Amino acid sequence: MSLVVQKYGGSSVADAESVKRVARRIVDTRKQGHDVCVVVSAMGDTTDDLIDLAEKVSPLPPARELDMLLTAGERISMAVLAMAIAALGQEARSFTGSQAGVITDGVHGKARIIDVTPGRIKAALDEGHIAIVAGFQGVSQDTKDITTLGRGGSDTTAVALAAALEADVCEIYTDVDGIFTADPRIVPSARQIARITSEEMLEMAASGAKVLHLRCVEYARRFNLPVHVRSSFSHREGTWVTDKPVESTQGAVVEQPIISGVAHDRSEAKITVVGVPDKPGKAAEIFQVVAAAEINLDMIVQNVSAATSGLTDISFTLPKTDGQSAMNALNRAQEGIGFESLRYDDQIGKVSLIGAGMRSHPGVSAQMFAALAEAGINIEMISTSEIRLSLVTRAERLDDAVRVIHTAFGLDSSDGEAVVYGGTGR
Amino acid sequence: MSLVVQKYGGSSVADAESVKRVARRIVDTRKQGHDVCVVVSAMGDTTDDLIDLAEKVSPLPPARELDMLLTAGERISMAVLAMAIAALGQEARSFTGSQAGVITDGVHGKARIIDVTPGRIKAALDEGHIAIVAGFQGVSQDTKDITTLGRGGSDTTAVALAAALEADVCEIYTDVDGIFTADPRIVPSARQIARITSEEMLEMAASGAKVLHLRCVEYARRFNLPVHVRSSFSHREGTWVTDKPVESTQGAVVEQPIISGVAHDRSEAKITVVGVPDKPGKAAEIFQVVAAAEINLDMIVQNVSAATSGLTDISFTLPKTDGQSAMNALNRAQEGIGFESLRYDDQIGKVSLIGAGMRSHPGVSAQMFAALAEAGINIEMISTSEIRLSLVTRAERLDDAVRVIHTAFGLDSSDGEAVVYGGTGR
Repeated sequence: MSLVVQKYGGSSVADAESVKRVARRIVDTRKQGHDVCVVVSAMGDTTDDLIDLAEKVSPLPPARELDMLLTAGERISMAVLAMAIAALGQEARSFTGSQAGVITDGVHGKARIIDVTPGRIKAALDEGHIAIVAGFQGVSQDTKDITTLGRGGSDTTAVALAAALEADVCEIYTDVDGIFTADPRIVPSARQIARITSEEMLEMAASGAKVLHLRCVEYARRFNLPVHVRSSFSHREGTWVTDKPVESTQGAVVEQPIISGVAHDRSEAKITVVGVPDKPGKAAEIFQVVAAAEINLDMIVQNVSAATSGLTDISFTLPKTDGQSAMNALNRAQEGIGFESLRYDDQIGKVSLIGAGMRSHPGVSAQMFAALAEAGINIEMISTSEIRLSLVTRAERLDDAVRVIHTAFGLDSSDGEAVVYGGTGR
Repeated sequence: MSLVVQKYGGSSVADAESVKRVARRIVDTRKQGHDVCVVVSAMGDTTDDLIDLAEKVSPLPPARELDMLLTAGERISMAVLAMAIAALGQEARSFTGSQAGVITDGVHGKARIIDVTPGRIKAALDEGHIAIVAGFQGVSQDTKDITTLGRGGSDTTAVALAAALEADVCEIYTDVDGIFTADPRIVPSARQIARITSEEMLEMAASGAKVLHLRCVEYARRFNLPVHVRSSFSHREGTWVTDKPVESTQGAVVEQPIISGVAHDRSEAKITVVGVPDKPGKAAEIFQVVAAAEINLDMIVQNVSAATSGLTDISFTLPKTDGQSAMNALNRAQEGIGFESLRYDDQIGKVSLIGAGMRSHPGVSAQMFAALAEAGINIEMISTSEIRLSLVTRAERLDDAVRVIHTAFGLDSSDGEAVVYGGTGR
């Protein structure tokens, strides 16, 4: 007997029928002899509907009240899921984030979990009940106000709760079969990854892979918690995110490949600061201005200074959503820093190759550049970590770049068979 | 400066536009210099929609989970109302029943308030904020589970909170202008009552008047709290429920009439137990059987025994919704008690005349019977209290009975002008 934490997203509980299907799945797990704690998101479009309602009464709703409003979404889904489980003859009890002991800081809309004190969940499990917990929400340590965790918050709730309960595994149910070597909508021959290390998964999430949120992976890594990402529409094995070797269903240890996958990201823009005086401290001034606007930069390139002019250009990428405020902040600082002009470019794409094996295989970057050159794809910026290699290309060549790299590193499924993306076409 | 508790029902906050209208009203009250605490119900049909959803996943949802689900309704309305107030430039903070300190027993679906500890509400008011509190809900003292108060629960929340905060007045906003001498849909010449004592209001509520719930009036009476029932669609004075004399807008003390109003009730049925042995203890056996089924009886009549047979008939009224279970319980007990048969009659109506002046005017019942006799309306059962006189008639003569009594006691509006029922025809 083990303790399993399962997380079901909004698309898995979109309507009453889906809720009943998920309830059967949970009851099956319970009947296999496991203790089960379930984290659930709001049903389908509930959150969007609530945001629409808020916008009808207020142009800029106070963040505290928006959190109060949005948390009604999981309250509905968790109670309905508990009812559906009860209708199958198992005892289930639902708990809000606050009742489950999800303690956060006070930053409404993107609160961080400070502590998890799941006394009531433990008690419910000890009584043999299935515990259903609202994802995405917590309670502020200082003000006792209700908070939400922001994007990917339900995954983070599940992993944090699993860690606090010392669960054996955290299963993240989604509408795809797991993590793929690339987005199958771009690369039809992409393969499902059987196992990936948390370090690689972190780089994948940071590089634009959408299945797991960065913060959730960080949490799992910190607590050394195995995460199993799988589809709620099938019973296939999904992807294990764990640093321990896992056994395949045939009992063999799954071998770790050099390259795990190719991620891509269309959400970034590039700002170029043109004609910056090539003096010590000027780059620092620019990035202080951007940092003061609370904008996270990604890649940075400083051009080699032209000896004759004494001026240089500095380019960096950032989320498109922060583009306007970064441009405003830099424009205000133009006179003080003394640069010539700004250029804004939102027609870029980023492709990243991720694999722990890169550490011991120095030829990876050369192989990647060669493949792109052969396909006539121009590289505009480069950044690397120990286990990741990221490039910026024109947005219209991004899909090509992903396919070329995927093929070059032998990631295409060997039998040429198309991998089904998702179980029901949702 | 005074402290005002206002309660708005679901029809007053049915959609975004209504919420904005109510927000303006609240802000107006605040700007007049009052501290304002608002209790709000779920928006429009939200509660019914949530019950529909529950029924889709479970034939008999667990009461704990149904309460968890339904409380999402006020969570939405209170957050949206707080946003609408903030959009008008006033600070507002919403609180769940639990956060507002509404402590109840553990009877899900019809919990009773045990205590109110509104520390967070007081703090919010002290900071100059408008406090918005979810009606209808609380938290169980023993299990810390979320509870709901059942029908009329938001009114009870408002009155209980007003008592705990030592508010100067509790304003109950509804879609009619206050309490009327009879239901204006039946008696077009019914007048709005300016003031009614809590004792009379208790009898009105118990006799079928729908505007205020019995439990809420009991609470107001216990804490000697003035309640002002008025329309959220107009700025007219409504009805004051208070034992203190109130002044009219012209400064004169409003005189207390002998009769306050005529209430009616179509929700009851009559059961007759036929051929009961006329021996001591037989009536007690019958009512023990009914009480064991947790059914509240209203009126009881025992016929005079026919000397020859040694048998008698016993009739009583009860809510129609309890009819089936009462019949089942009595049928099971037939052999033990030894009665002949049961008759069930749901074609009855009850009309009640209420007035504190009855105590000192002994002719009231004779006057009432004479008026009904003249109209050819048969009286089937009678019950009285110190300030109430109730009669059972055939259901199809109930409306006539209400009109005849209303006229006989001089309650028709003197100028013959039709009183508008409600402000917007809702």
